[in-house]
Amino acid sequence: MQVRDCLVSAPGKAILHGEHAVVHGKVALAVSLNLRTYLQIKARSNGKVCINLPNIDTFLCWDLSELKQLLACLGDKKEEAQRLDAELVKRLREFLGVTDGNLDSSNTATLAFLYIYLSLFRSGELPSLTVTAWSELPTGAGLGSSAAYSVCLAAALLCAGGTITSPLKEWEHTARWCQEDLELINSWAFQGELIIHGNPSGVDNAVGTWGGMLRFLAGKIIPLSRVPLLRILLTNTKVPRSTKVLVARVKDRINKFPSIMIPVLDSVDAISCTCEKVLTDMTCEPITGEHYNVLEELIDINQHHLNVMSVGHPALDTLCRVTLAKGLHSKLTGAGGGGCGITLLRPVSRGHCSHIIAIKQ
Amino acid sequence: MQVRDCLVSAPGKAILHGEHAVVHGKVALAVSLNLRTYLQIKARSNGKVCINLPNIDTFLCWDLSELKQLLACLGDKKEEAQRLDAELVKRLREFLGVTDGNLDSSNTATLAFLYIYLSLFRSGELPSLTVTAWSELPTGAGLGSSAAYSVCLAAALLCAGGTITSPLKEWEHTARWCQEDLELINSWAFQGELIIHGNPSGVDNAVGTWGGMLRFLAGKIIPLSRVPLLRILLTNTKVPRSTKVLVARVKDRINKFPSIMIPVLDSVDAISCTCEKVLTDMTCEPITGEHYNVLEELIDINQHHLNVMSVGHPALDTLCRVTLAKGLHSKLTGAGGGGCGITLLRPVSRGHCSHIIAIKQ
Repeated sequence: MQVRDCLVSAPGKAILHGEHAVVHGKVALAVSLNLRTYLQIKARSNGKVCINLPNIDTFLCWDLSELKQLLACLGDKKEEAQRLDAELVKRLREFLGVTDGNLDSSNTATLAFLYIYLSLFRSGELPSLTVTAWSELPTGAGLGSSAAYSVCLAAALLCAGGTITSPLKEWEHTARWCQEDLELINSWAFQGELIIHGNPSGVDNAVGTWGGMLRFLAGKIIPLSRVPLLRILLTNTKVPRSTKVLVARVKDRINKFPSIMIPVLDSVDAISCTCEKVLTDMTCEPITGEHYNVLEELIDINQHHLNVMSVGHPALDTLCRVTLAKGLHSKLTGAGGGGCGITLLRPVSRGHCSHIIAIKQ
Repeated sequence: MQVRDCLVSAPGKAILHGEHAVVHGKVALAVSLNLRTYLQIKARSNGKVCINLPNIDTFLCWDLSELKQLLACLGDKKEEAQRLDAELVKRLREFLGVTDGNLDSSNTATLAFLYIYLSLFRSGELPSLTVTAWSELPTGAGLGSSAAYSVCLAAALLCAGGTITSPLKEWEHTARWCQEDLELINSWAFQGELIIHGNPSGVDNAVGTWGGMLRFLAGKIIPLSRVPLLRILLTNTKVPRSTKVLVARVKDRINKFPSIMIPVLDSVDAISCTCEKVLTDMTCEPITGEHYNVLEELIDINQHHLNVMSVGHPALDTLCRVTLAKGLHSKLTGAGGGGCGITLLRPVSRGHCSHIIAIKQ
C-alpha cells in the first residue's frame, strides 16, 4: 500500500486559569500557542517504516515484516477512541524493550507512533513510510508538546491512509479539516496521549486539534467560539517537577485545611468564569485598557491562589517580580512547582488563532 | 486635691490573622506584644498640669486655672464609655488651636490626655500633676501604640484619683487589676482611642488592657483564656500608608470581583478559626513541631490572601522572601500596604503574656 505524502502542524497549549482547581471539579481555560509541532509523512517503497524526531534525538527504522508480526493473531478489535488495545500496547512495549515502568520521551513518542500506525493500518496492508516531526515546543514544560505531536501523528496518518482527505485547495498554503474529521483526529490523538501520559485530561489534544480557547469542566471540553488574540510571553523556568507530586500536594493541603482551601478553589473557579466573560466581551465590544486591567488582576489573584495551593516556586516568584517591575503580570501555567510561567502582554497587532492545519509542501 | 503617684505600663498589639476580613464580618485574632508603653503620674503642688511625651517630642504645661475654665458651664454629663462629650472635645480643640482637620500625634495625644483628665476630675477639684509617658512602640506602625498610651492614661488617672486602687502588694514589683477595674480602664482607654482614631474597633485598647490574645468578631471582643507564648519577630518596613485608603481598596476589589473575593474572605475566616484552635491545642497538649508547621502554613496562606486583597507591598514581599530563605514564615500585620510584618519564630524559652500592669516605683 502506498500512502499519500502530507505535512501537518498543531499548536501547543497553555492553561490560562484553573490548573489544579480543574482536578477538583472547577473550570479551567486552556489556550493554543503559536508554538507548533510539525510532522511530515513521506511514502517509501523500501519496505521500511522510519521515524525521525530530531528534538528528542530519536531516529528509528523497522522492516515492515517485523511490524506485521506484532499484529499476528491480535484479533480484530474495533478501535475505541477512549481505550487502548492493551494487548497491542503490551506487544509494542516488549518489541521496544521498555516493559519496565518509566519510559523516556523517546520511548513514549515511538510507542505512540507505532500504536496509531498499526491501529490505523492493521486491517489492510502496512504501508512503507517515513515520519519526521520537529517542534518549537520544549518537552516536559507543560506546554502540550506531546499532545501537539499526537495530534499531528493522528492527522497525518489518517490523511496519509485516506481515512480523511486533505483539506488543502490548490491555491492554499494551509487549511484545516472539517469538524467531523477534527473529531476523528482528536480521538486518535487522545489515544497517543493515553500512551504518553497514562491518564491525560484530554484538554491538551483538544487544544492541539481545535486551537483557540477551550473551557474544561468536569471532563467536558467546550471550544469557545470567539476569543481575542492574546499576546503571551512564555517563560520556561526549566525547573523540573512532577505533575503527579504537585497534584498530590494540592490534594493533601485540601484534606489538611478543607475550610481554608475549598473557598480558594471556588475563587479560582470564579476567576476562570470572569476571565471567560472578559474574553468574550473583548470579541464583541471595542477592546479597552480596562479589559486588560481585569485580565491582569485575574492573573495576579490566581498566582496568589496557586501559591496558597503550594504549587509555586521561587523561580516563578522571580518571574512575577521581574515582570511586575515592568508593569507586566505573570502566573505559573500548568502544574507549577517550576515549569513555565505566562506573562500577559498588551496588544500591538492582530493575528489568528492556531489549530491543526494541513500545509502545502 | 493631691493625687497618688503611679507608674503603669501596657502592651502594644499585632493582628495575627483576619486584618481587613474583620471589616467584612470575619474573625480576627489580635495578640499583645512585649513592646510596652510606660506612663508615670507624679503629684505636684505648683498648680500646674504638665505632660511629657519624649517619643513624640511633646512637652506641655498648663495652669490649673486655664484648665478649669474649659469645664465652665459644661453641664454634668455622666461619662459614657462609648461616646465622647462632643462639647468638651470642641473646647479642647479650640484650646489647643487644632480645630482644622488633621491632627498630628502630638496633638491627638495631648487631646486624649486632657479629655480623660478633665472628664475624670471634672466633678471635683482639678489636681496638679505631671504625666510622663514613653514607649517601646513606634507610632503609626499599626502596633497599637496609641491604644497602649490610652490604656496607660486611663489606668494611671483612674488610680491616681482613687477611682480604682493600686493592685500592688508590698512585695510585688508589678501587678494587674481585677476584672472590674480592667473593664473601667478599658472603657476610658476606648475614649482616648475615639479621640485619637475617630472610629476605633476597640481591639487595640482591649489587647492593651487584657493582654494575651483576643478574638474579634462583628464588634464583639472575646479574650482567649489560655494561649501559648509566641515568639514573633516584628519588622517595620517604615513604608507609610493610610489605613483608610487600604480599607477602601479592599472594599473596591470585593465590589469589582464579588464571586472571586467573597470566598477569599471566607478562607481568611477559616484561617483565624484554625489558628485559634491550634493555639488552644498548644496550651493543653505537648507543643510539637507540627503545631508550628500549621501556624506557619496559615501565615503563608493569609499573606497570599492579603496580596489578593491588594494590601501587600514590595517591602513586605521582600520580608517574606528574606525570612523564608531562613526557613521563617511572615505576613503583614494590620492594614498592610507597608507598615509592619510579623515573622513567627519557633520557641526557645517560656515567658508570660502581657497586660496592663501597675509597677512598683
